[in-house]
Amino acid sequence: MRHDHLISARQLSRADVEAVLDRAAEFDAGERVDRTGDLLGLCFFEPSTRTKMSFDTAMKRLGGDTVDMGPVDSSSVKKGESLADTVRVVEGYADAIVLRHPSEGAATLASEFVDVPVINAGDGAGQHPTQTLLDLYTIRENAGLDDITVGIMGDLKYGRTVHSLAEALTEFDAGQHFISPESLRLPRNVRYDLHESGADVREHTGLETVLPELDVLYVTRIQRERFADENEYRQVAGEYRIDAGTLEAARDDLTVMHPLPRVDEIAADVDETDHAHYFDQAHNGVPVRMALLDRMLDRGDRR
Amino acid sequence: MRHDHLISARQLSRADVEAVLDRAAEFDAGERVDRTGDLLGLCFFEPSTRTKMSFDTAMKRLGGDTVDMGPVDSSSVKKGESLADTVRVVEGYADAIVLRHPSEGAATLASEFVDVPVINAGDGAGQHPTQTLLDLYTIRENAGLDDITVGIMGDLKYGRTVHSLAEALTEFDAGQHFISPESLRLPRNVRYDLHESGADVREHTGLETVLPELDVLYVTRIQRERFADENEYRQVAGEYRIDAGTLEAARDDLTVMHPLPRVDEIAADVDETDHAHYFDQAHNGVPVRMALLDRMLDRGDRR
Amino acid sequence: MRHDHLISARQLSRADVEAVLDRAAEFDAGERVDRTGDLLGLCFFEPSTRTKMSFDTAMKRLGGDTVDMGPVDSSSVKKGESLADTVRVVEGYADAIVLRHPSEGAATLASEFVDVPVINAGDGAGQHPTQTLLDLYTIRENAGLDDITVGIMGDLKYGRTVHSLAEALTEFDAGQHFISPESLRLPRNVRYDLHESGADVREHTGLETVLPELDVLYVTRIQRERFADENEYRQVAGEYRIDAGTLEAARDDLTVMHPLPRVDEIAADVDETDHAHYFDQAHNGVPVRMALLDRMLDRGDRR
Repeated sequence: MRHDHLISARQLSRADVEAVLDRAAEFDAGERVDRTGDLLGLCFFEPSTRTKMSFDTAMKRLGGDTVDMGPVDSSSVKKGESLADTVRVVEGYADAIVLRHPSEGAATLASEFVDVPVINAGDGAGQHPTQTLLDLYTIRENAGLDDITVGIMGDLKYGRTVHSLAEALTEFDAGQHFISPESLRLPRNVRYDLHESGADVREHTGLETVLPELDVLYVTRIQRERFADENEYRQVAGEYRIDAGTLEAARDDLTVMHPLPRVDEIAADVDETDHAHYFDQAHNGVPVRMALLDRMLDRGDRR
Repeated sequence: MRHDHLISARQLSRADVEAVLDRAAEFDAGERVDRTGDLLGLCFFEPSTRTKMSFDTAMKRLGGDTVDMGPVDSSSVKKGESLADTVRVVEGYADAIVLRHPSEGAATLASEFVDVPVINAGDGAGQHPTQTLLDLYTIRENAGLDDITVGIMGDLKYGRTVHSLAEALTEFDAGQHFISPESLRLPRNVRYDLHESGADVREHTGLETVLPELDVLYVTRIQRERFADENEYRQVAGEYRIDAGTLEAARDDLTVMHPLPRVDEIAADVDETDHAHYFDQAHNGVPVRMALLDRMLDRGDRR
Repeated sequence: MRHDHLISARQLSRADVEAVLDRAAEFDAGERVDRTGDLLGLCFFEPSTRTKMSFDTAMKRLGGDTVDMGPVDSSSVKKGESLADTVRVVEGYADAIVLRHPSEGAATLASEFVDVPVINAGDGAGQHPTQTLLDLYTIRENAGLDDITVGIMGDLKYGRTVHSLAEALTEFDAGQHFISPESLRLPRNVRYDLHESGADVREHTGLETVLPELDVLYVTRIQRERFADENEYRQVAGEYRIDAGTLEAARDDLTVMHPLPRVDEIAADVDETDHAHYFDQAHNGVPVRMALLDRMLDRGDRR
């Protein structure tokens, strides 16, 4: 990595990504380190069970511990403290900071004020690089990262997770198919960037034609809030749901992923199939974050 | 124990119970183990200071650590995630899961979806087996578990704690007296089950006649919400309050218990008497939960 | 210390304070102890990011761990439990208790009911002794504690922090200047006590004349809520704000402090000057609380 901070998946070269995934695989295989005495500061300015618990687990699995800023409504933030001040206080407590914030750019701003490593755990419509890394890890474990065909389906317009993953995949030899209703297509600028990166990108409004080609199908939720009309939502969402029947047309080794939580876009009968990898995917957050934290805390030690 | 999960006190034989209480007594006497690296997942779908803090303490006293799902209103649950999905994610983080949930049957359901041990820490009107075990531990430490006479007083209609304890006591040679207002008597089905188990059960509307016989008096709160009429509540609740004066008619070695929190059903002047064991009872949650966790994590290790 | 509990800075002699600060300096310099197995109970009956996270960090830096009562709205307190009952339960979980409570006198009350050390982390308008100790530590590190001139500016009427610090400074050879609007002067009884202690105390309505003499300038926030009239607030608050320009009239080695969070009473351009010590001050909470906890847990061990 070129930086002490991890703000965006974009800052990671292919070699960086592979180094992190290799290290994650070691932790997954039982590798142990002893970071007794190291503290990770958890600064979550908006709720996030999944990500917060995963970082908490990763740090504790490394032998270290965490200190939590607590919910914003019980914090100094409510008294009008700036983000810059909050993180400058927390850097006195912790050896690294994980930051989740509703405003795009928050992690970059925070990183400019502190001397400990900052890890972006999601900044509004911005980046969430550890999600991208655990997605890549899951794809690599199941399908490899080269010469694969990936389908990404659902809300492609607002999905931060999807944009980062698509961008990261351009570093690898992956064909990408985007499946969504017309109203939730990839934004023009994301499409443009993908084309500029030389990605092999195709868009579809239905899964049917492309499904048999896919090594990986990444499903995301279509949110009710995106539709003014409830009937339109129901009709659209219904077309982008999958169940065990849908997957009969897929390759036997198709890997189905989802960033979770799901509501009903993947039926429960898929859980019983060999295609289901979304729970593994969530679990992979632990070794991936262990690898990252172990690496970034080392850099911190060297300062 | 016949199961990897602890859902109900009913699944514990007398021998199981005694094994757990014996082990708890060892921890109480200073026994130490080193579970460094073991993580307990805390999934509390409704608030519970007492139980959560007690499990957190027990796991840390074993040398392990905990990871907390956090409050439900900041979790994926709010986005519509099912209980089955939530626990399947958490099993990737933790070596065992403690679950508190407002719906009866939640712990059983959760246990069907995960491979790590699930401990029920209360599921609505259902079971709360570790409360029962710490109650039994406290009775055993103070009065023994055989050839004793136990009085249980207060709200016997809605009290989950009381039903489990009464049922568990049928495994031992304990006479049971139930003292409550007519409107808050033991439910018919609980009475039936106790009779079926061959328990020596008697019901009273007042404490006075039975008090001198008791080795243990277990007091529970009568909740205002149970009464449509404030005056009726006050009158009824007043009759089931005890103070130091009340206890003058009791045996010198009467053990008074209460699951806490109390409001005013036990007057503060009882705290100064040798009868008061309700704080010890709360503290006993730690060695009892240490014993359980140590045992269940061993089973987990063997899998 | 004469007591097992730390309720008020008043109970600390000059020798006590110096012993704690000396020990804090050792921790600051990298001294390590191993309190594995010791648990600190965090009982925060009102929100406090800064103080809670600092105690949490301090205990973990000592090698120990913490157990948290959680927010009051999810606790037994909401069911009507008394403070005395709550702390008597928590003493069964933890080796020492940190208590923050909205009511003055709460820490004293709590300390009367439990056998583990209680540390007051703020009780309403009452005391907050660890804040005073970290303030003294910061002053000592930067200006020494003898033969210094300290200015305290802002809301001197309601500021608990300010009253404790002023009182503590009377044990040392420090001149004290109080700078505030007329309506927010030191309360009469605080002034009286300071005079009785033989303190060299002067009051001002402006900073200008006294600034060049100061070794330390302690700034506090003037709260909007203190003023019925928004315009009056703006005018008053504006006069007690400092920026880099203001400080050109100060000594080169002036130490500027603030208990944080700040809103705008210290402009961001001060952060870049050598005067800025308010973030260090927050960080100093960790070694100071490590020193206190290490000392009080030793006393606990001896019991």
